[in-house]
Order: sequence, then C-alpha cells, then structure tokens
Amino acid sequence: MKTDYERIFHPGRIAILGVSAEEDGFGSRILMALRSIGFAGDIFPVNPKGGFFANSEIYRSVDAIPAEIDFAIIAVAARAVPEALEACRKKGVAGAEILSAGFKELGTPEGIALENEIKRIAARGIRVIGPNCFGIYCPRSGLTLLPGPDLSPETGPVAFLSQSGGMAVDFANEGKSIGVRFSKVVSFGNGADLRETELLAYLRDDPETRVITMYVEGIEDGDQFFSTLRSTSRKKPVIVYKGGLSEAGRRAVVSHTASMGGSRAIWNSILKQTHAIQVQDMPEIAQAALAFSFLPQRVYRNITLLGGGGALGVSAADAAERFGLTFPPFAPETVQRMMAILPKPGSSAGNPVDVANPYVAPAVLCECLRIGAQDDRIDLQILISLLGYYKNLARYLGKPLRAVAPFQELAEGVQKVAVESGKPIVIIISNPRRSLDHLDVVETVELARKAFLDRGIPVFDDLRNALRALSHVNEYASTTGNRTIGIEMGEEHE
Amino acid sequence: MKTDYERIFHPGRIAILGVSAEEDGFGSRILMALRSIGFAGDIFPVNPKGGFFANSEIYRSVDAIPAEIDFAIIAVAARAVPEALEACRKKGVAGAEILSAGFKELGTPEGIALENEIKRIAARGIRVIGPNCFGIYCPRSGLTLLPGPDLSPETGPVAFLSQSGGMAVDFANEGKSIGVRFSKVVSFGNGADLRETELLAYLRDDPETRVITMYVEGIEDGDQFFSTLRSTSRKKPVIVYKGGLSEAGRRAVVSHTASMGGSRAIWNSILKQTHAIQVQDMPEIAQAALAFSFLPQRVYRNITLLGGGGALGVSAADAAERFGLTFPPFAPETVQRMMAILPKPGSSAGNPVDVANPYVAPAVLCECLRIGAQDDRIDLQILISLLGYYKNLARYLGKPLRAVAPFQELAEGVQKVAVESGKPIVIIISNPRRSLDHLDVVETVELARKAFLDRGIPVFDDLRNALRALSHVNEYASTTGNRTIGIEMGEEHE
Repeated sequence: MKTDYERIFHPGRIAILGVSAEEDGFGSRILMALRSIGFAGDIFPVNPKGGFFANSEIYRSVDAIPAEIDFAIIAVAARAVPEALEACRKKGVAGAEILSAGFKELGTPEGIALENEIKRIAARGIRVIGPNCFGIYCPRSGLTLLPGPDLSPETGPVAFLSQSGGMAVDFANEGKSIGVRFSKVVSFGNGADLRETELLAYLRDDPETRVITMYVEGIEDGDQFFSTLRSTSRKKPVIVYKGGLSEAGRRAVVSHTASMGGSRAIWNSILKQTHAIQVQDMPEIAQAALAFSFLPQRVYRNITLLGGGGALGVSAADAAERFGLTFPPFAPETVQRMMAILPKPGSSAGNPVDVANPYVAPAVLCECLRIGAQDDRIDLQILISLLGYYKNLARYLGKPLRAVAPFQELAEGVQKVAVESGKPIVIIISNPRRSLDHLDVVETVELARKAFLDRGIPVFDDLRNALRALSHVNEYASTTGNRTIGIEMGEEHE
Repeated sequence: MKTDYERIFHPGRIAILGVSAEEDGFGSRILMALRSIGFAGDIFPVNPKGGFFANSEIYRSVDAIPAEIDFAIIAVAARAVPEALEACRKKGVAGAEILSAGFKELGTPEGIALENEIKRIAARGIRVIGPNCFGIYCPRSGLTLLPGPDLSPETGPVAFLSQSGGMAVDFANEGKSIGVRFSKVVSFGNGADLRETELLAYLRDDPETRVITMYVEGIEDGDQFFSTLRSTSRKKPVIVYKGGLSEAGRRAVVSHTASMGGSRAIWNSILKQTHAIQVQDMPEIAQAALAFSFLPQRVYRNITLLGGGGALGVSAADAAERFGLTFPPFAPETVQRMMAILPKPGSSAGNPVDVANPYVAPAVLCECLRIGAQDDRIDLQILISLLGYYKNLARYLGKPLRAVAPFQELAEGVQKVAVESGKPIVIIISNPRRSLDHLDVVETVELARKAFLDRGIPVFDDLRNALRALSHVNEYASTTGNRTIGIEMGEEHE
C-alpha cells in the first residue's frame, strides 16, 4: 500500500477544487499547467456550478467523483476552504495543497480563525500543504507549482523547501536555466500542517533526493527542527538560506509569515552544529545546488585554472584564497609540456594558465587539461570558456556565431578528460555581451551550457561564484566525512 | 593649438603600423574596428611591403604619409616596435598605443631591454599607451579597443583605466549591456610611459568625464598616485578595484604586470583617506558606475520598495541594513491610499509594498510611486519589475511576450513620477528565465531595460547589487560633501 507521502508526491488521481467553466482563475491555470508539464494520471475538476473546462467534465462536488482521489489542489475563496478540505478528508484524499490566500498572513481575526479550522481538519486525517502557497513541483510525477507551466519536465537530485512561493518559482526557473534539476520543490506558505521539520524528515529518507535546499523564515519547533537537521545532514547535504537575520529583516518576517525569526547568533550556531551549509541569498543556493548535483562529494583543495588574460589569474587567486582553495604552481616539466602546444607570445602556463588567445583549438585546451590532471596534487580543474569572443570571428567570416564557436567539440573533449582522469572539470562562461544586438551571443552561451550539462559538466556564470560553491562542497565533505566517488561525473544526464 | 592629450584621444589622422595586405592580424583588425565604430578622421595603414588593404593604400613607412599624424597604433612584432615608435616620434605624432606583446611581461632580459628602449624613445617626445595592451576606446572620437568592433558608439560620463586589456574589453561590453556609457576607456598594459597617475590627473580635468573607474594591480609612484587620487576625488567620484590583495593574488600580480602590489591594509587606508570608493570585483565596478551615471550625487537613506512576494521584503530588509539603508514604514494614510488601488487579497503596503499580482497595471504601480514620493522622508524609490511573469499571460493569449509585457507604458509612467517628484526611481529586473526556450524573456528584458535607460531610469539585475551600488553613492556624497541636484535624472539620454 502507498504511503500518504507517496500518494501526495506521486498521485494517480488529482481533484482540483475551484476550476470554473466561465472564468480564468488559479484552478483552471493549475489544470492547464499540469497537462502542459505532462501529468500522466487523471485530473478531476470540481465546482458546484458544474459545466466543462478544456474538454473535462467539472464535478459538482468531490464526493461525486467516481474514483479514489490521492491528492487535491484547493483554489477556492478562503472562506470556502474549510468545507472543501473537509470534503476531501471524507473522500479519503491523502493530502491537499491549498493555493488560496486570505488566512493567518492577513493578521485579521477572521484569517486566523480560518487557518485554525484548517489545522483542526488536518489533525483529523488529511495532510495539508499551505495555505497561501504555490504548492508542489515534482517533475517525475508531473506536479507543478502555480503558475509554473514552463518548468522543466526533467527530474533530478535537488529538493527545495520554501516558505515563500515566489522563491520556489524563481528557483525552479533559475534551476532550469543553470542546470539544477529537482526531485521535489515544496512551497508550503503558512505551513498550517506540513512544514519545515516534517518535510525535511521526509526528504532525508527520500531516495529521489540527494541534495536538500531550504529557504527558511521562521521555524515552529526549534528542538525538533534542530535534531531533524542534524540527522538529515548526516545522510545528505542540507543547504539553508535563512531570511530575516537583520533587525529590519526580522520585522519583515513577522509580517510575511508571522513566524518567529530567531537571532543571527542562534542561527549561525544551529547551522554550524548540525553541519548544515549556510548561504546568504538565492543565487548562492542555486550555485551550491549546482555544485552538489554535479560534483562527487570530496574535498577539492588544489585546482588548476585555464583561461585568458593575466588579470583573471589575479582575481582568481584573490577569490581562491578567500574560499580556502589554491592554484598550486606547476612543476617545470608540466609548464614545458603545456607551453609546447599553447600559442606564443602571450600565453603562460604557471597555473593559472593564460591561453592568451580566445581562438585556441578545443583539442589544445583539452590536452592542457589532460596534462594538468596528471599532476597528482590536483583535485579539480576549471576551464574559462572565451566563447563570446568568437562573435568577432563570426562577423569576420560572415557566419552565425552558433556555427563558429566550437562548443560541441569542446564539451566532448572536456567530458573525455574528466572521465579518463577521474578529476572533475568545471566550466565558467561569463558573458558581458547581453545587449539587443548580442542576443546571438546569449543564445550560443545557452547552447554551450546545454552541451556541457548534458555531459555531466557543470557550468557557472562567474569564477568567484563557482569557487564559493566549491567551498560549500568542501565544507560538507570535510566536516561530515560524507564522500562519494565518481557519481554522475562525466556521465550522460537525463 | 591642440594638446597632446587632445591629439591622442580625439585624433584627426591615425597611422596604423602593421597592417598587412595579405594576412589577418591585429593591425588589419583594428583598422576594420575603427571603421565599424565610425571613426570619422583619416586612417593611414603602414607596412614596409606596401600594397592595399580594404581599399586603402598601405604606406611603406610613417615618413611616407603625406599628412601630419596625431596618433599611431603600433601592431608590429615586439622587436620591430622601437624602430616603429621612433619613426612616429620623428614624424611629430603626439602619442602611440602599442598593442604588441613580448616585453617586460615575459620576464626575459630581451623583453625588459625592449621595454626600456620604448621608455627612452617616449622620454624624447612621444606619449605611449602600452605595450601589451588593448589601447583606447573613446566613442566620441571613434577610437576602439582591440578587438572591439561591437562596442557602443554612444558616449557617456564614465572613464575606465585598466592595467588589464581583458577587463577593459569586458567592462566596455558589460557597460553596453547594462547602460554604462563611456567617455574614455584606456587599457594601458605594461604602462611603459602613460599609466595610472598621469591618466588619472588627465581624467580629473577632463570635462567629458564625470565618474572615474579603475582596475589597479600595482602602482609605480605611491606618493604621486596618492595625492592625485585625493585631488581627483575632490572633483568627481573615483571607483577603484584593486586586484591582488590576497597573498596568492599578490604573487599573480607580479607575474602579470611585474608591478608591486602593496598590502591590503595599506590599500584600504589609502582609498579611505583619499575618499576613493573601493569595490571588490568587476561586476561591482560596473554597478557602481551605473548608479553614479544615473543618480544625482546625494545621500539616499530612506527608500521605498515596490515588488511582489513577501520574502522579497525579508531579503530586501536584510540587504538594506547591511548597506546602511532603511525602508521606513509608511504612515497609515499612505498605506490606505495605496491599498485603495492595489489588488486584494495578497497585497500589502507597509513598505516594502507587496503588489502580490505580477499583472498590476502600470498606471496603478506609478500611482503607488507617486503616493510614496509624497512621504517627505523618502529619498529614492525602487520598483521591482515582474516582467518575466508575463510569459504565462503571453502563452495564454497566444501572443509574443514583447507585445504583452507593458514595459513601454511603465517606463513612461515611471519617468513622469521621477521628474515630477524630483526623487529618483531605480528599477530591478531579475530574470531567472534564461534557458533556450525562454530567449523571448531575455529579449523582452533587454527591450524593457532600453526603454527605462532611454528615459534616464537605471536598471539593475538584482536588488542586493542595486542597494550596494546606492551605498557607494551615499558614501561619496556623505564623505566628500560633493552633491549635485537633478542632473540627468529622468532626462532623455543620448
């Protein structure tokens, strides 16, 4: 028999309460979104007025649906939510996400009373996500956030728990853009029933989830959260962005989800003691999730860097020191072997390696990586792609940039070196060319990103951010002793 | 009579030494780039072999050119540079940029000797930019960096001095993308003759330059640089990114430009005492330059924020506190006036204002800004555009996103409120939708950015970065007392 969680995250049959035959609304939008992302089960729209929507019969009540329902999506006006939820409970629905707003977050007696009613119904035997949330995104089963019809249908190792619906949608989109794929994203809003602690415990034991990320404003039960965080971190990395650690932020937390924030000192200490990984904003969560998704969990201290321009070496060295990483100088024979194939004058092979010329052939770059990997001290290599510079060559040749920039060949070569050497390679593609006359550069960067990601090679927009993300992997591997060898690296991704 | 600097930065006639009739090389590329960006004067290519390139006669020597030459671009092999430079000097050329590499940066006796020869020739009466540099970009006169044919032809208030050619090209491109326009960018490479101190003094007195930015690795004369920095900061803001402040970075500086770096403590103290603005990386330089370009120099402490999602308020409050800014809560009557026009439920008007719905009409958003400006405490307003969310509406309506997202109307309305209220408005457009199926979102964001920038309204990608840039404007206005009132704000830009 399926557990409640299985029926919630992988439902066979969904009821959507609040689909109107006449008007556009959250109910109809989420129905269209589920179809668009490819939900394979049955969807039963419900509205007391009946009628048809998008070729589906609208049932007048949950009770009238002639089948068992696993999961319900409730998108009716706040005052009608308790009755709708109770009907789902009586029907034997395992869980419901309540998208409607108008509860505790209003701070009004009526809103608080309605939320308390939801809690009472939940306690009688139905799990609730929300209210005032954007719901669940689970690509494997075809569930998606409101209004998310354009999220990726691909599944992956990263879970995200968020009190904020906007952050859930933004991270799901950002993840799609940069190559983070999700097992489950849960926007739990006010968290009347299921919230951070229970969901974390579920994800701890969820075989589909390998990396957990969280946006937390406040928590309900400090002790339970603390012990769950500790037991979860022992099994897999938990990356936490705690919002509202400033004075002003704390006041904003109270007005957003009416939860208690806690002081900066307490949070820093909790996260450190539990070996959770603390980050400072959403971009940092996304970058850390990317690193944990693609890199085997080990400590990476000694790094090679291949790129163009000597100033890059300066900035890189500054950033590396800050994040506890080093670029050890190569032995003379390594330098010689690289210099024998690099263009002259202008290049230098000290580590960082300055390849000088943006048009250096992929085969030469890959040979340098192969040579670099042979240095026993090296744990990981970084290659800065100078793809954008091919714009000048493309103009000169009168060809489209995507046909001129050799990213496909480079991606294949890089994958080969990574697999053969067993040392991960990270790609940086910074792109300052984003104006309207450079949309071809933007497109080519995205094509290149896909070519690398499809081969298990992570791509970052910025060297400093990549080094910071690496430092989080190091922190986790060195404090918990959790190490993996070779998972996914260089292998084809879904 | 024109000064040497005028003849260098605004030359009427340029000689390019090293243009080949047969091969592609730096000389021919820079010639094509000058034509492409619109250099209006005469260009005289030079090569001992003669011939024709791109319909121009190639002169066999500088001496053979039948006209006075203001400025020379030298792109011949390193060992031929001294003779070429000496020929320019004899011809009466005011200055030359030497693009060639192969000098001091090699660390070889030959390279050092060649560079010393350049210094001796320069001392006899010709100014030199370089060697080992990408030259000068000056859109007003039509000079451009190597290989920069795609830089903006628009002129603006920002100057950039850089020891690194790569950074100069990257910042020139980044500036084009985000709305920073340049008076002069100088990549001076090894700095055999003209370098940071003299160029800074020139920019201090340059009426075309209102904001100075610098990437510095090492300086040659600490005392002179210090006093020039101090006198320049009194007149206009100087934003400095010092690379190589870490131990590892210092070693990289030595190998890149062979200049002395100096310790972190010394630099922090120099920059503080001279009221220069210290930043930590290139993105921060670009964002600060954007803020100084568009905002009158004043202290902005009290800010309103309009956007979507309560978590935004939490992150915003955290970031604001860090940068010494506040979002003062509105008076009850201000809240009432905004709530009367905002959609319910879901919105709240405490400051930050959560507009809840991404489809709120531009007229309503602008009315909220108008109401916010009437609060006497408020110095500046920030509006977070939820443009990307129109993708769902566009899909629903079956129309292209650029036709559905009302950025034009919003830009016009925002400009009107900014001009009428005399309080600047800053726009944030974050875009997590950048994957290959969302290139229409990327394009629409760029169209929107242009609509705002054309009306004198700055646009940032990220709220935290915008607040950090604002804090630099505050730092300058409060420590130097330099204030401007209303320049450019809300006026049409070139």
